[in-house]
Amino acid sequence: MIVVHHLNNSRSQRVLWLLEELGLAYEIKRYERDPRTLRAPSSLRDVHPLGKSPVITDGALTLAESGAIIEYLVDHHPEAKLAPPPGTPERVRYLYWLHYAEGSAMPLLLLKLVFDRIEGARMPFFARPIAKSIARRVKSSLVEPQIAQQLDYIEAQLAKYPWFAGDAFSAADIQMSYPLEAAAARAGSRASRTRSGARRRSRSPCRTAGDPRRCPSTTFAAGWCAPSRRT
Amino acid sequence: MIVVHHLNNSRSQRVLWLLEELGLAYEIKRYERDPRTLRAPSSLRDVHPLGKSPVITDGALTLAESGAIIEYLVDHHPEAKLAPPPGTPERVRYLYWLHYAEGSAMPLLLLKLVFDRIEGARMPFFARPIAKSIARRVKSSLVEPQIAQQLDYIEAQLAKYPWFAGDAFSAADIQMSYPLEAAAARAGSRASRTRSGARRRSRSPCRTAGDPRRCPSTTFAAGWCAPSRRT
Repeated sequence: MIVVHHLNNSRSQRVLWLLEELGLAYEIKRYERDPRTLRAPSSLRDVHPLGKSPVITDGALTLAESGAIIEYLVDHHPEAKLAPPPGTPERVRYLYWLHYAEGSAMPLLLLKLVFDRIEGARMPFFARPIAKSIARRVKSSLVEPQIAQQLDYIEAQLAKYPWFAGDAFSAADIQMSYPLEAAAARAGSRASRTRSGARRRSRSPCRTAGDPRRCPSTTFAAGWCAPSRRT
Repeated sequence: MIVVHHLNNSRSQRVLWLLEELGLAYEIKRYERDPRTLRAPSSLRDVHPLGKSPVITDGALTLAESGAIIEYLVDHHPEAKLAPPPGTPERVRYLYWLHYAEGSAMPLLLLKLVFDRIEGARMPFFARPIAKSIARRVKSSLVEPQIAQQLDYIEAQLAKYPWFAGDAFSAADIQMSYPLEAAAARAGSRASRTRSGARRRSRSPCRTAGDPRRCPSTTFAAGWCAPSRRT
C-alpha cells in the first residue's frame, strides 16, 4: 500500500488530494514541524535522505518531489484522466503549470517568507531598523513586483480557461493549489483574490470532509479538493 | 521552426543542449541581461508575459519553463529515447530529477545568490556590519547546510548510476546540468567537485564545438553537451 509521509503545512497535501482523486488506498504517516523553527523533524530523513515532504513509499519504491509523485501516480492510472492526452494544447498547458508551480511561483514565495522573517526578527535595537530596511528593499524591488506580475498572469490565464490545463480538471490544478495557498498566506489580500477565484471553481463537497483523519491540512478542510467534475 | 529565445547565463542553455541531442533545426533569438541589475530585458515580455527565459515558440505555440519544454520536446520525439519507458525504475528516477532540479536545488541556490549580494552590497558604513551579519547568519543556518546536504545526496546517487536516471543518458541529465553549474558558481569548491564528477561522464567532443553561434553559453563551450552515448 502507498504510504504518504505527511508533514503538516507542506506540499504533501497535494499528494493526499491526488490520491483521493484517484480513489487509491493509502496510509498516512504524520510528521510535525518543530513549532519554533518550523523545520521538518529528523525522522523524515529515515524515509528519504533529504528529509523533506512530500515523500511516498510503496513497497521498495521511495519517491519525493510533488511534481514527480504526481506524474508517477497519474502515469500509472490513465483511467482517471488527470493528464490531458499527448499532442494536445491542453497537454502543453498541463506540463507548463506542473513545472511552473515550483519552478517560478514557489521560489519567489520562499524569498517573501525569508525576508518577512528578517523584517520581524528579534534583534538588538540598533540593528533592527537596518534589518527592516534591507528586507523591505529586497521585497519591494525584487520580490513583490514579481509576485504581483505572476498573480496577474495566473488570473489572466484562469479567465481564458476554467481549469489550468483547459476545459477539464487535471493534476496541474492540484500542483498549482500549493503556490496559490502560499501566496494567499504570504502575499496578502491581492493573492487571496486570485486564490478565491481559483477555489470557487473547485468548491464542491469534499469527499473527505468531516473525516479529519483524511483531511489533515487546512487546504483540504477548506474544500480545495473534489472538484466539480465529480459532481 | 522552433525559435529559442535565449537569455545569456540562463536556464535556456538546457533547451539548446536538448535540441542538439534531438538533432532538430532551430533558430536562436538572443537577449542580453542588464549588466548592472542582471535582469532580463523587457523585450522578453513580448514573447511571454513573465519575461523570463527559457521560452520557445513554434508556430502558434509559446512555451516557458525548462521542465515543461523538456517534457514537451521529449514526448514529441520518442525515437531519441531521452526519457526511460514508463513503468521502469529508471522512469521514476528520471521524473524525480526532472522536478528536483527546480523544486529543491535551485531555490537554495537562489537564496545563496541573494544573500551573497546582500553581504557584498555597497551601503553606509554603519549598516555594513549588520547586513553582513544577517546574511552570514541566514547562509550558515539555513542555506549552506542544505546545499551541502543536497550535494552529498547527488554525489551518492551518481555513485550508484552513471547517469541521473540510471544506466542511460536522459533529459534528466540536461535538466540537472543547470543547478550543478549554478552550485559550482555559487557554492565554491565543494560543488565544483560534484559538477566535475558529473561532467567527466559527459565530456566528449561537443557537436557544436567551434561554432560559437550554436554554443552561446559557457556551459556549452565547456563540453557539457554531447554525452558519451553519441560516441
